Amino acid sequence: MNSEKNGKEKKMSEKVKTLLEALPYIKKFAGSTFVIKYGGAAMEEVSLKTEFAKDVSLLKFVGINPIIVHGGGPMIGRLLKDLKIPTRFVNGLRVTDEKTLEVVEMVLSGLVNKEIVKNINDMGGRAIGLSGKDGKLLIAKQVKDTKVGLVGDIIGVNTDIIREISRHGYIPVIAPIADGVNGKSYNINADTAAGSIAQALSAEKFILLTDVKGVMDSNGKLFSTLKKSEIKKLIQKKIITGGMIPKVGCCVDALKGGVRETHIVDGRVPHAILLEIFTDRGVGTEITGDK
Amino acid sequence: MNSEKNGKEKKMSEKVKTLLEALPYIKKFAGSTFVIKYGGAAMEEVSLKTEFAKDVSLLKFVGINPIIVHGGGPMIGRLLKDLKIPTRFVNGLRVTDEKTLEVVEMVLSGLVNKEIVKNINDMGGRAIGLSGKDGKLLIAKQVKDTKVGLVGDIIGVNTDIIREISRHGYIPVIAPIADGVNGKSYNINADTAAGSIAQALSAEKFILLTDVKGVMDSNGKLFSTLKKSEIKKLIQKKIITGGMIPKVGCCVDALKGGVRETHIVDGRVPHAILLEIFTDRGVGTEITGDK
Amino acid sequence: MNSEKNGKEKKMSEKVKTLLEALPYIKKFAGSTFVIKYGGAAMEEVSLKTEFAKDVSLLKFVGINPIIVHGGGPMIGRLLKDLKIPTRFVNGLRVTDEKTLEVVEMVLSGLVNKEIVKNINDMGGRAIGLSGKDGKLLIAKQVKDTKVGLVGDIIGVNTDIIREISRHGYIPVIAPIADGVNGKSYNINADTAAGSIAQALSAEKFILLTDVKGVMDSNGKLFSTLKKSEIKKLIQKKIITGGMIPKVGCCVDALKGGVRETHIVDGRVPHAILLEIFTDRGVGTEITGDK
Amino acid sequence: MNSEKNGKEKKMSEKVKTLLEALPYIKKFAGSTFVIKYGGAAMEEVSLKTEFAKDVSLLKFVGINPIIVHGGGPMIGRLLKDLKIPTRFVNGLRVTDEKTLEVVEMVLSGLVNKEIVKNINDMGGRAIGLSGKDGKLLIAKQVKDTKVGLVGDIIGVNTDIIREISRHGYIPVIAPIADGVNGKSYNINADTAAGSIAQALSAEKFILLTDVKGVMDSNGKLFSTLKKSEIKKLIQKKIITGGMIPKVGCCVDALKGGVRETHIVDGRVPHAILLEIFTDRGVGTEITGDK
Amino acid sequence: MNSEKNGKEKKMSEKVKTLLEALPYIKKFAGSTFVIKYGGAAMEEVSLKTEFAKDVSLLKFVGINPIIVHGGGPMIGRLLKDLKIPTRFVNGLRVTDEKTLEVVEMVLSGLVNKEIVKNINDMGGRAIGLSGKDGKLLIAKQVKDTKVGLVGDIIGVNTDIIREISRHGYIPVIAPIADGVNGKSYNINADTAAGSIAQALSAEKFILLTDVKGVMDSNGKLFSTLKKSEIKKLIQKKIITGGMIPKVGCCVDALKGGVRETHIVDGRVPHAILLEIFTDRGVGTEITGDK
Amino acid sequence: MNSEKNGKEKKMSEKVKTLLEALPYIKKFAGSTFVIKYGGAAMEEVSLKTEFAKDVSLLKFVGINPIIVHGGGPMIGRLLKDLKIPTRFVNGLRVTDEKTLEVVEMVLSGLVNKEIVKNINDMGGRAIGLSGKDGKLLIAKQVKDTKVGLVGDIIGVNTDIIREISRHGYIPVIAPIADGVNGKSYNINADTAAGSIAQALSAEKFILLTDVKGVMDSNGKLFSTLKKSEIKKLIQKKIITGGMIPKVGCCVDALKGGVRETHIVDGRVPHAILLEIFTDRGVGTEITGDK
Repeated sequence: MNSEKNGKEKKMSEKVKTLLEALPYIKKFAGSTFVIKYGGAAMEEVSLKTEFAKDVSLLKFVGINPIIVHGGGPMIGRLLKDLKIPTRFVNGLRVTDEKTLEVVEMVLSGLVNKEIVKNINDMGGRAIGLSGKDGKLLIAKQVKDTKVGLVGDIIGVNTDIIREISRHGYIPVIAPIADGVNGKSYNINADTAAGSIAQALSAEKFILLTDVKGVMDSNGKLFSTLKKSEIKKLIQKKIITGGMIPKVGCCVDALKGGVRETHIVDGRVPHAILLEIFTDRGVGTEITGDK
Repeated sequence: MNSEKNGKEKKMSEKVKTLLEALPYIKKFAGSTFVIKYGGAAMEEVSLKTEFAKDVSLLKFVGINPIIVHGGGPMIGRLLKDLKIPTRFVNGLRVTDEKTLEVVEMVLSGLVNKEIVKNINDMGGRAIGLSGKDGKLLIAKQVKDTKVGLVGDIIGVNTDIIREISRHGYIPVIAPIADGVNGKSYNINADTAAGSIAQALSAEKFILLTDVKGVMDSNGKLFSTLKKSEIKKLIQKKIITGGMIPKVGCCVDALKGGVRETHIVDGRVPHAILLEIFTDRGVGTEITGDK
Repeated sequence: MNSEKNGKEKKMSEKVKTLLEALPYIKKFAGSTFVIKYGGAAMEEVSLKTEFAKDVSLLKFVGINPIIVHGGGPMIGRLLKDLKIPTRFVNGLRVTDEKTLEVVEMVLSGLVNKEIVKNINDMGGRAIGLSGKDGKLLIAKQVKDTKVGLVGDIIGVNTDIIREISRHGYIPVIAPIADGVNGKSYNINADTAAGSIAQALSAEKFILLTDVKGVMDSNGKLFSTLKKSEIKKLIQKKIITGGMIPKVGCCVDALKGGVRETHIVDGRVPHAILLEIFTDRGVGTEITGDK
Repeated sequence: MNSEKNGKEKKMSEKVKTLLEALPYIKKFAGSTFVIKYGGAAMEEVSLKTEFAKDVSLLKFVGINPIIVHGGGPMIGRLLKDLKIPTRFVNGLRVTDEKTLEVVEMVLSGLVNKEIVKNINDMGGRAIGLSGKDGKLLIAKQVKDTKVGLVGDIIGVNTDIIREISRHGYIPVIAPIADGVNGKSYNINADTAAGSIAQALSAEKFILLTDVKGVMDSNGKLFSTLKKSEIKKLIQKKIITGGMIPKVGCCVDALKGGVRETHIVDGRVPHAILLEIFTDRGVGTEITGDK
Repeated sequence: MNSEKNGKEKKMSEKVKTLLEALPYIKKFAGSTFVIKYGGAAMEEVSLKTEFAKDVSLLKFVGINPIIVHGGGPMIGRLLKDLKIPTRFVNGLRVTDEKTLEVVEMVLSGLVNKEIVKNINDMGGRAIGLSGKDGKLLIAKQVKDTKVGLVGDIIGVNTDIIREISRHGYIPVIAPIADGVNGKSYNINADTAAGSIAQALSAEKFILLTDVKGVMDSNGKLFSTLKKSEIKKLIQKKIITGGMIPKVGCCVDALKGGVRETHIVDGRVPHAILLEIFTDRGVGTEITGDK
Repeated sequence: MNSEKNGKEKKMSEKVKTLLEALPYIKKFAGSTFVIKYGGAAMEEVSLKTEFAKDVSLLKFVGINPIIVHGGGPMIGRLLKDLKIPTRFVNGLRVTDEKTLEVVEMVLSGLVNKEIVKNINDMGGRAIGLSGKDGKLLIAKQVKDTKVGLVGDIIGVNTDIIREISRHGYIPVIAPIADGVNGKSYNINADTAAGSIAQALSAEKFILLTDVKGVMDSNGKLFSTLKKSEIKKLIQKKIITGGMIPKVGCCVDALKGGVRETHIVDGRVPHAILLEIFTDRGVGTEITGDK
């Protein structure tokens, strides 16, 4: 019985140590803005969804301002299928006509966005869900490749709303639908939307939750950290390839636009964000400026 | 040519007179909060939609704080039909299972809400769309009649968010989906949701946009104004019947809860709201307290 | 009877349309500062006085900050006559000795200023009357031509008070009497005073209410709009002559000093200000910068 | 030469002692509001005028908020005479027709008010002159005795403006002209106006500057201090008589209305206000509540 | 190697879980004020001192406002000894003459207070040390038992300074020296001072760090929690005895004065405060109100 | 008896004149920050201590923000002697080991600082005592000459705390102990500390209270005023020598760092500060910039 008590006490003391280990990180990031692109497995598996909601609630409580930008590809695909609306992709972008955009909006702004909001609220945080149409938060124009239809490039971010909501203790959760200058609406790639918002806010961190370990070398070993200038070479050497290219591109753009640090993090790992932020050994690839 | 010019000048001068006639109303309502239940024809016909967006933008610009709460019944019915999900009503309430609620949310929060937001933004106002889940804006519990499924009664309104958004120059547009205390979500009758929000805000006006002329007597003549105490008698005398009963009920509840004036307004009339507010002769029935 | 009703309804709907036509102008000018030189017929005729008071009240209610600077020539003349104090003019400036200045102050600060204030207050606005001596709002030095006596050129404007009063929802009404650096007081030309205040406030508009139609060409046709650079030529060509020269001079100075747009408006036309601001076709001459 | 130096040094040291003696009073009254009725000799003699301006400037600089309400009887009489307008008094109130009121306003708001403002500004303070019409600062209704014409009783004070101006570092100087609820303007007795303003502001002190030593007993000896309850008896015993009766009445009303202390002070004594406030031995009669 | 990696990962994940377990407590106490009496072993042993500084820094960073009140008995004893000043105690209070008080102040305000401040600052918090004399933070009068000399009972707390400093992100550290109404200074028992400050601030928690396990029953078993009403009985039954009596007295007084919860915590246990606040099983006795 | 009364009245009137003579100085310095190095006789003699406390209280009440930085040499020496700790000086700096620094801190932060605070509080001001460790107000590094031990040069001033405390109506009183970047604490020369704080605050005045008349010429005559550029020459000519050299050095550094005026004032003269500030003929040497 005594050893059990000792065990308990030891465990207690372990816990306290952990809280204290987080102190320098809490101090370092107090008041900072982190823009987090939320998607992939972390948004699909029930337990990962709950963990994510806890994670961002904790960030908010220790003084960090998390801004969530989410995707929703698979759910969109499912509803399109249920409605028997055919869909196809050109260069990784979903060809989006009026009917498809309506489905995209219903899923992103109506379903996914509010589910994330509810999860965070249930975990103790206070979230407010917005689409890029709200208060003209995101302004876009048609992408150059008109074949893809109503897909847009962001040309303006109304940071005023985001800051206001954030300053009042809420966590903004943003669906990547944008208002068009010509009265239209646009579907925006979530990674790009998140990066643009991070730039507009001069965020301290831009974190991309993905379904891969991070950036890997030719032997499949993870790069823990990379400099902006190294990215170009890795692409030329075909070490960074495929879907990872636009992701590192978002990071590089964010860094150029004033974001301090960017992270490509494995969203399949529970609490990947907390591990990346509050421990010395993160769980993905950090891409930083060259100095 | 001269007469043409005189005609123009006369028209100009008419316009100015109209602007000035609005002055006492603008003065009277400066700083007031108006909760407007938006629905029916005014939300379906293209031209009425545009006019409504202009109207609420104007209200905001002349110093009134409009809060929009919207329904979306027909659009919900359409998507349910497209998805081949059967639906039925009990006592005027849609029986709502998990699958149906998902569709309700997609349509209300994702489609209808954002369309209203976009319309207002395009007319010069600045709107932000929220569902009752955002920041736990609306908290509900299951209605007594459990046969209807996930339909809720409002038991709490987080006015803090609404006021904050309104104070920052934005027009809140609210979809009547509520957060449940037990982790569930609920579909809320839009009239009731609007009335509850009006009460919680102690709004100066609660305006119900409907597809009828207002409350009518046995000869089909419109009551321009009614007192709270007269309503009960008119129901007993079967002069107020059917779908009008819950509507006048919302108004009476709102008055009891501290709202100053309530209006049942014909949303099929273009600019019904402006006519009701800025002219002596409104376009519906005003229901007021007994003093 | 029915047609009468239809007529009424049509009229109602006309009114609402007018309100809505003003919306883009209201939006455009929300938060702007308009400095209005008030004088001439608009300050003499009873009905025009009332209309003016309504107009500026409306401007304030729709979010514009009107600042009124007024003259008072004829009333001054009358009191001087009643008191048998002889008076004469040199180059359009009243020769002002101590005794005359006392009369000028009594009429401007005591009578005219407070009447304008009362008119605006009675029309629903909230006005506060100030002379340039209040809080050293206007600082002047003697004009070069010492023959005219206590007539001054403005060398400083204390914008702090004006902004403060304006920010608190009041309409400042300013009598053009200035404090002298040497302990004296000065009579200031009202057009000049208004222009200087507009400059000091970097006003969006400077509006000169006069008793003429505006700037006219050699055929007596009104220039609707003129550029700053055209003014000089029109003076050289003797198209702009006489009393109009100092008026356009005030406008040109205001433009040089940072005012965005200036207007010479016919104060004899009822609601000239509203027509100029809220309709496409104004009632005077607009003088703008050269770009 | 040494003794001269010693003399100088002694004088210096005397001065410093005086500054320090004021310290407890400065501390006691920091942040307090003093309403001062300014009139009589103190407003007529050149040197007293200058001293008064210095005094209130000093009050403001040491953290007290002086509010000046002034009369102007003699100047009004002079202008009426110059204009050959006959005038007469009923029960101490000037019978005021439209023409007379115009003269009253010109003198009070235009001349006297602005002269006080200028004097204070020249002495280093920052004053703003207002009439009771400005921002509807004073609202009045006709006195019961309609024979006196446009003479009013105050029924409302807009303290918002006074506080705002005072909070911004300015000294409000108020002319006792009031706005009527029926669109008329009224002449107000300056003592009464000052007392009403003191009540509305819950002033710490209400100071009546007069041309007498204060309240005197039957032997002509000054009462240094009197309690509210003693006043009635002194009037009954005919010790307080004539023009002193309304003055003590103002004080008693002010005390009933929440003013902490009232003073009837001899305005003929230079710096009477400073002596009353900053030294133990005042120069008039203090009337306080009964506790 | 793989198992090593797994071990690391497991450890990481443990850490994250701990952070998240703290979330409900962080949420619960966000914005709360905790007054902590700091003394005993926790203030003597080097490692405990460092841990304490970390703990309060962490509290501050997660949104709690810790207020530290410290003792300093042993250090005072040492300096008195070094200076060969004899000292004695009456009823647990140090007999304090002028010379002794000087030593007490030097040690408490000069040495102990600043060492705590420095420790906290070095651990990442931002502390400001104050004595009760600063801004008359603590006002005291002589205790009844005059034999003890300059020992005081607190009769006033200036919470304004504490709140201000706390609101600006600093942790106030307070030495229990008080200002006397009669110009004297007083030595205050640190437990009492802390309790009085907790009451004055209506603190959520008052935590007494001591060198015992907490309140124990007759078998030496710790009471985890006690109600206010139980304390009296335990004293009567002589279960609570000796030095514990005044400590529980401080807690009971604090509860009566509006403090929500009080804790007697074992300061010899590292991180006792964090364990008490952030885990379900605390390390001392909680004394609460009777409901 | 009459002449006695006249005498009294004359004296009164003298006092009022003195108050008014201070008005232009009060006006000139309203809102200014004065950093005062307090030391020497003014900190030792009982009556001078009281006078100083009165003086700075008065400064605060008339709108100036005094910041006090104090020394404490003689008291430190006494305690070191009592504790039989040997002490010695190198180039005017006390050789400071750990034990000595502890004594320095106890005396400065614990005794002298709190005595000054109490004196000011007793005279009506509201003071808060801080050491440079509080909120890391002063950051220092070891002086180059390592022989002197823990003596530091200031490398950073946290003006945020000083301004915050000052803005809230308190007078900051600062003991010249600094926090070291390497975890150590340092003893700082009080003149230098005061000068650095004055620079960091861009103070309007930096006043050095000393025990000499000021800077004197070769005939022992006081320089009333000196320009920065003259100082160097006077040192080269050996007119400024010995202990005066570092004092004028502090002034010159302060001027270079943005302080507007510096004063070396004779602290043995009662109310030296007030005489220097509020009268034309000061009591020391003013050193100003070269323009």
